[in-house]
Amino acid sequence: MPGSGVDFNGLFGVNTPPRPDTVNPLTQRFKYDFAIAFADPGTFPSADLHKALGRALEEEGGDLAYYPHPQGHPAMRELLASTLDQGRGMKLSPDQITLTAGSMQALVLLTELFVDPGDTLITEEFLYMGTIRVMRRFKANIVGVGTDSQGMRPDLLEERIEELRAGGARIKFIYTVPTFENPLGTDMGLQRRLDILSVAQRSGIPILEDDCYVDLRYEGEASPSIYSLDDSGSVMYCGSSSKIIGPGMRLGWVAGPREVIERVGTIQLGATPSQFSVLAALHYLRESREEHISELTRVYKSRRDTMLAALGEHFGPGAVTSRPDGGMFLWVKLPEGTDTPALLGKAKAKDIRYGPGPIFSPSGEGANYLRLAYAHLDEDVIGEGIAELAKVFEAEGVLG
Amino acid sequence: MPGSGVDFNGLFGVNTPPRPDTVNPLTQRFKYDFAIAFADPGTFPSADLHKALGRALEEEGGDLAYYPHPQGHPAMRELLASTLDQGRGMKLSPDQITLTAGSMQALVLLTELFVDPGDTLITEEFLYMGTIRVMRRFKANIVGVGTDSQGMRPDLLEERIEELRAGGARIKFIYTVPTFENPLGTDMGLQRRLDILSVAQRSGIPILEDDCYVDLRYEGEASPSIYSLDDSGSVMYCGSSSKIIGPGMRLGWVAGPREVIERVGTIQLGATPSQFSVLAALHYLRESREEHISELTRVYKSRRDTMLAALGEHFGPGAVTSRPDGGMFLWVKLPEGTDTPALLGKAKAKDIRYGPGPIFSPSGEGANYLRLAYAHLDEDVIGEGIAELAKVFEAEGVLG
Repeated sequence: MPGSGVDFNGLFGVNTPPRPDTVNPLTQRFKYDFAIAFADPGTFPSADLHKALGRALEEEGGDLAYYPHPQGHPAMRELLASTLDQGRGMKLSPDQITLTAGSMQALVLLTELFVDPGDTLITEEFLYMGTIRVMRRFKANIVGVGTDSQGMRPDLLEERIEELRAGGARIKFIYTVPTFENPLGTDMGLQRRLDILSVAQRSGIPILEDDCYVDLRYEGEASPSIYSLDDSGSVMYCGSSSKIIGPGMRLGWVAGPREVIERVGTIQLGATPSQFSVLAALHYLRESREEHISELTRVYKSRRDTMLAALGEHFGPGAVTSRPDGGMFLWVKLPEGTDTPALLGKAKAKDIRYGPGPIFSPSGEGANYLRLAYAHLDEDVIGEGIAELAKVFEAEGVLG
Repeated sequence: MPGSGVDFNGLFGVNTPPRPDTVNPLTQRFKYDFAIAFADPGTFPSADLHKALGRALEEEGGDLAYYPHPQGHPAMRELLASTLDQGRGMKLSPDQITLTAGSMQALVLLTELFVDPGDTLITEEFLYMGTIRVMRRFKANIVGVGTDSQGMRPDLLEERIEELRAGGARIKFIYTVPTFENPLGTDMGLQRRLDILSVAQRSGIPILEDDCYVDLRYEGEASPSIYSLDDSGSVMYCGSSSKIIGPGMRLGWVAGPREVIERVGTIQLGATPSQFSVLAALHYLRESREEHISELTRVYKSRRDTMLAALGEHFGPGAVTSRPDGGMFLWVKLPEGTDTPALLGKAKAKDIRYGPGPIFSPSGEGANYLRLAYAHLDEDVIGEGIAELAKVFEAEGVLG
């Protein structure tokens, strides 16, 4: 049927991505699925969200018949402003916040707003593959900066900026996940945050601080957000409720200088989140936020420890593993020469999946790394799966 | 605060729209608000949606912890495929449907997919201003085609295509709202649909059929969708639940040839609707769709008649008014020389708002037209407001 009337291939825009050549990973499920960072289905507060929505609809249900406020429900933005003030030391007026359909939509809007094809974005050397995909969709040149145990290194950041500018690059922003970076799990201390901010300010390049994992801390002291340390209007900030009440809610936000939020308003038509989700989340978070986060972090911490123990037992000294204070995954370094993308097929044959290092690298590096998600899996599944994965790697001579 | 560290104005992409210079109309409310086509807050089924969500969460609430299927909840796509088959004669497999965060998001995705700056899109001569805004955001050249009482004229469409091609235009698709066009209220009969399709097929240009008002019919026979008349794979189709269960749900869809839907999949990351809204809508629509639509159309028909009567009484023969068989608004022609954009300030001073003709025109024409929405307003408000508006116009010498 298709094709006889219209040749679509001659009509698609020149800058759109080609036809996808792989099945989307989200449609497949594996027994030992260490690849994707889901929230825990068991801790999803279905009944409480439903009750919260009932209260919300009684109070303001008729408003659902209207188009939402273009920046999103005012009471939700007020709640966010107050949560970000108390938890992250951020002084924001609600009109400096725009709700988005998930934090990925916030990234889409900012990338669209800033990036002309060929413009440069600076990131950590490894980052979430979805973020890479969005930046590539807008034809950004993505440049990863080297990291250490606290994340992006300010000295290397400064060097890179100088090199890039010497080469004529137009650098649009520095994208960083300072707290529980995905996949590295790194958490910047106060001084590191100040140093990164200082480089950005001196260079006149804004920072986009993605704080989407900040609520998932089970150990250590939280450092202030980079946004809160800035007095020059150089930092944009995004976050999400996906990590605490599930990505299915599609509720994220972008905050920052008014001139940026106003410009976001010129392109975000139709990208506002469902008012229905917003109302449920608003009333739920008002009552249960702290309690729910305590429960989540208790469960995730125990799963992290189970996975660390299983890796220690089955992977042995050939593997070097991150030990993050929060978040949803571990980052594992295997011996040089290991090819985790090539080994993934062997793992899948045993119903195991993981994230091979190069999918997190803008330049395709990191073949001897892998990311293991644990937050959504029962502890016995974690233990069994790691033992099975070790067998796959041993059979291939990886773990010696 | 902003500006001392970073000069944002030097960083925004060259193709992004400038800072908005007007307050967004959605944030203001008027007593007699004939400008915006809201659903009726009184008929919004809050309680039933809440009950439906309760059933949904019992059955599949844990799934909210997962990222949604990239094309959207499979059961919702199955329900849509079956509804579109029964109601619109459309043969679609659920994998030819992708859910979007409202039908506006469907238009954003298709426009992004097809349009390079300067490409041409063909539309009706008057259309929804939000659609114009999206097309402009992607730098499309929008060409309106003349209409009659049945909407877009096939003879003028064919002429325009020839002229445009002779001038070297790259025409990407024909966007049409065949049923209850906004703002015209026109409804294409079967032969008109066949004629428009035939021109498109002969020209090798796809049609994007926007059927978002189709459920709001209170009189007359429904004609088949253009999609159902096509056997050449030339028609894309979008729709929405906004008109029956409120735009706050952000639930729309795009359907069409597999090669188009697959390509949409390469760019729609993060634009999926809230799973929470989808679940509520799914269970609600399964049980209550027909009944709710009957109630809505009964209410809207009566409001339409009230507005028609009030216009007849107060506007007199100087105004020529559409009499649509469905939808949410009337289109009123005032005497030549009337300047509805200029008169809007006078109306606002009396707490009245309407849609001045030129905002619906890609070329800014139609200064003697206005659009009046009635679906969301009580009948006494409609009657009073039209009487007040007539006074404003009379005072300016418009209605003679």
